[in-house]
Amino acid sequence: MQDIAFTALVHGVYVITTRSGERINGMTASWVSQVSLSPLLLMVSIAPSRYTHDLIKESGVFAVNVLSQGQVDLGKRFGFASGRRVDKFAGLNYITADTGSPILSQACAYFDARLVETFPAGDHTLFVGEVATAKILHPEMQPLVFSKKDFF
Amino acid sequence: MQDIAFTALVHGVYVITTRSGERINGMTASWVSQVSLSPLLLMVSIAPSRYTHDLIKESGVFAVNVLSQGQVDLGKRFGFASGRRVDKFAGLNYITADTGSPILSQACAYFDARLVETFPAGDHTLFVGEVATAKILHPEMQPLVFSKKDFF
Repeated sequence: MQDIAFTALVHGVYVITTRSGERINGMTASWVSQVSLSPLLLMVSIAPSRYTHDLIKESGVFAVNVLSQGQVDLGKRFGFASGRRVDKFAGLNYITADTGSPILSQACAYFDARLVETFPAGDHTLFVGEVATAKILHPEMQPLVFSKKDFF
Repeated sequence: MQDIAFTALVHGVYVITTRSGERINGMTASWVSQVSLSPLLLMVSIAPSRYTHDLIKESGVFAVNVLSQGQVDLGKRFGFASGRRVDKFAGLNYITADTGSPILSQACAYFDARLVETFPAGDHTLFVGEVATAKILHPEMQPLVFSKKDFF
């Protein structure tokens, strides 16, 4: 019953990317929220076991790539494999944001952020980043709303 | 440009309620996210100037009431007045959750939570609550996705 109720929370679908030295990676996440207006801060909740978790801690930067309706497969690609073993960007176009994080050219919008705080929260870590650049890449696209049946 | 990009983040529309002693209050918020699976934790970002902010700090409990498509007016009612001056619950049906927080009978689902952490984040405070009860009240309703044009 608890599980069903959680489907009533509204989340988007995002690929969280970062670069640490020569290594880039990205992972699909949906626990993302704006948390402050001035400064503009975003929060992303990531499990400590994820490769991206450690890379963001090392690099102090991350970008939030907003996936669009019709991009469930792109979300699965970045969600169900680890960047420790697979180059998830192989064959995909991306640009490099000011902070160095890779930005998927297909994303409908992105937020390039610098890490300002990390907080522990249960089995996850909250990464709070200050947005350096926020840009719509594809104004014709609509952000994807997370639905469990799309991914599980 | 930054402002437009922020419309690409996906948020729901919620009424965050609490009870401190004899006082109950609620406020509309959209910066809400699940942040942990085990324990089940939710994060709500609230500005320190809000009456609800102080009441949650006093009480240590809050509930997240999920608004549905068609409930923009209910969101406005709890969004644009302060509970310091107005009884926002006047004329509305509500039940009392286990923790004491009021639950709007119209909400499509609710999460009754105990505060476990507060973190500062820019001009807001992150309230992290452990979910004691999560319940769908109206399975026929669809959660409302926040759209700036609905509220501003």
